[in-house]
Amino acid sequence: MTRRRRVYEGKAKVLFEGPESGTLVQYFKDDATAFNGEKKATVTGKGVLNNRISEYLMIKLAEIGIQNHFIRRLNMREQLIKEVEIIPVEVIVRNIAAGSICTRLGIAEGTPLPRPIIEYCFKSDELNDPLVSEEHITAFGWANPLELDDIMSQSLRVNDFLLGLFAGIGIRLVDFKLEFGRYYEADEMQIILADEISPDNCRLWDVVTNKKLDKDRFRRDLGGVEDAYQEVARRLGIIPEGGPGDLQGTTAIQ
Amino acid sequence: MTRRRRVYEGKAKVLFEGPESGTLVQYFKDDATAFNGEKKATVTGKGVLNNRISEYLMIKLAEIGIQNHFIRRLNMREQLIKEVEIIPVEVIVRNIAAGSICTRLGIAEGTPLPRPIIEYCFKSDELNDPLVSEEHITAFGWANPLELDDIMSQSLRVNDFLLGLFAGIGIRLVDFKLEFGRYYEADEMQIILADEISPDNCRLWDVVTNKKLDKDRFRRDLGGVEDAYQEVARRLGIIPEGGPGDLQGTTAIQ
Ligand SMILES: Nc1ncnc2c1ncn2[C@@H]1O[C@H](COP(=O)(O)OP(=O)(O)O)[C@@H](O)[C@H]1O
Ligand SMILES: Nc1ncnc2c1ncn2[C@@H]1O[C@H](COP(=O)(O)OP(=O)(O)O)[C@@H](O)[C@H]1O
Ligand SMILES: [Mg+2]
Ligand SMILES: [Mg+2]
Repeated sequence: MTRRRRVYEGKAKVLFEGPESGTLVQYFKDDATAFNGEKKATVTGKGVLNNRISEYLMIKLAEIGIQNHFIRRLNMREQLIKEVEIIPVEVIVRNIAAGSICTRLGIAEGTPLPRPIIEYCFKSDELNDPLVSEEHITAFGWANPLELDDIMSQSLRVNDFLLGLFAGIGIRLVDFKLEFGRYYEADEMQIILADEISPDNCRLWDVVTNKKLDKDRFRRDLGGVEDAYQEVARRLGIIPEGGPGDLQGTTAIQ
Repeated sequence: MTRRRRVYEGKAKVLFEGPESGTLVQYFKDDATAFNGEKKATVTGKGVLNNRISEYLMIKLAEIGIQNHFIRRLNMREQLIKEVEIIPVEVIVRNIAAGSICTRLGIAEGTPLPRPIIEYCFKSDELNDPLVSEEHITAFGWANPLELDDIMSQSLRVNDFLLGLFAGIGIRLVDFKLEFGRYYEADEMQIILADEISPDNCRLWDVVTNKKLDKDRFRRDLGGVEDAYQEVARRLGIIPEGGPGDLQGTTAIQ
């Protein structure tokens, strides 16, 4: 196997140069971080599960016409993706109040919102991903108004689809975070969905018990983080290749 | 003089029932507060100056068609205003980076913004006036999308006019805060400008020296707060009735 160039190492994933130009290999680590990196740990098997869950959701989304970066899974921890120019804005879609919106606006966790609310945060670890509005995004040129409209309408479609998908397996989609990027092909530019969709960036509550099946288990020290992610994968009908034993398997980062 | 009912006492002003229904008397105090009331002091004469400055600016704005609550000045500290249903959103218009946007987005104070940026904060002392976006405002019903469009376009007009007015007297309008409200007359509802426009809620820098002529002198303990407000009034061509001595005069709050 030839040595690959590491393009970027983030908090949860590593990007390598892909086999063809315009592609990247996205490697999912077991690292868990919260509160902008202040809290850190390893959750064994998380990377394998997120790789599978994100693959599954991206494929389903492509089927309803949400273009995204996923090309194919390479192995347990890696997927081949289209390289995009990431728009430095996290798109948060909220259906039920949880997390930062509760303290910011004084809303009790679990309160259904009057309608889905989209928030944008400027992707900046140093600044702690501050909440911004369309005004900031367009004024500073992070995205133009047309791109932002596209991002908003795609995000609402993703929300509707995922609300349905999770409802079907007894899970309430409380909120989630998306990233989009500019994909250049020939002379065309297209805004496509990128990054990942997994329990790392969704809030997922069991419909019956309200049990949290997401990263809040880690943030709030509730325990059973890996079990929760596995439960999500199981309900989605994803079984890790070779069974759960496979989760500890490490595809060494070169 | 008959005893008036006090409707509301805020940090800088007191509202009394007006002589006719649908009107209020706005009394300007000398109280100065910052950091959401954590820092407090009395700036002698501030109320008198703000009453005059706000009167002056509201009259000028009405002349270019910006409907607002100002009816007429009653005395040194009081003005008669139209009662509105305040929209609980502070509208901040920024031309140059200063204050919270600098720390939030990592921009050096004094950096000209690529274009005027409008921010909204939810008016809530308990929550510390959190930054919100149009999404929050419309989802929670604080204002509807049509009202918000109206507010935004009125705010941009106010900005253009005030930029010009202050440029003409050697002052850079860095940023300012506005409040709007719903004014009901017969069967009609109209969004009009309310509250006040004064050095309490504008950042005003001398064009030549960059000297701050606004509340930042108080926030940052720069001294000469009253002198700065008086300088603004003087440049606007406003001289307190009876000269500066008049500033200490108190129109007792009944
Ligand atoms: N298709 C893509 N092309 C280029 N960059 C991407 C793509 N998808 C995701 N990324 C970026 O790769 C990084 C993923 O690693 P992650 O560990 O999530 O990083 P971070 O700590 O910056 O969030 C993110 O910075 C994300 O914006
Ligand atoms: N025309 C108006 N009708 C009704 N309320 C108004 C009007 N203009 C301003 N207000 C409200 O009156 C109060 C003014 O007092 P202030 O000391 O600024 O209060 P605060 O501490 O709440 O900002 C504010 O709450 C403002 O929203
Ligand atoms: Mg990330
Ligand atoms: Mg006020």
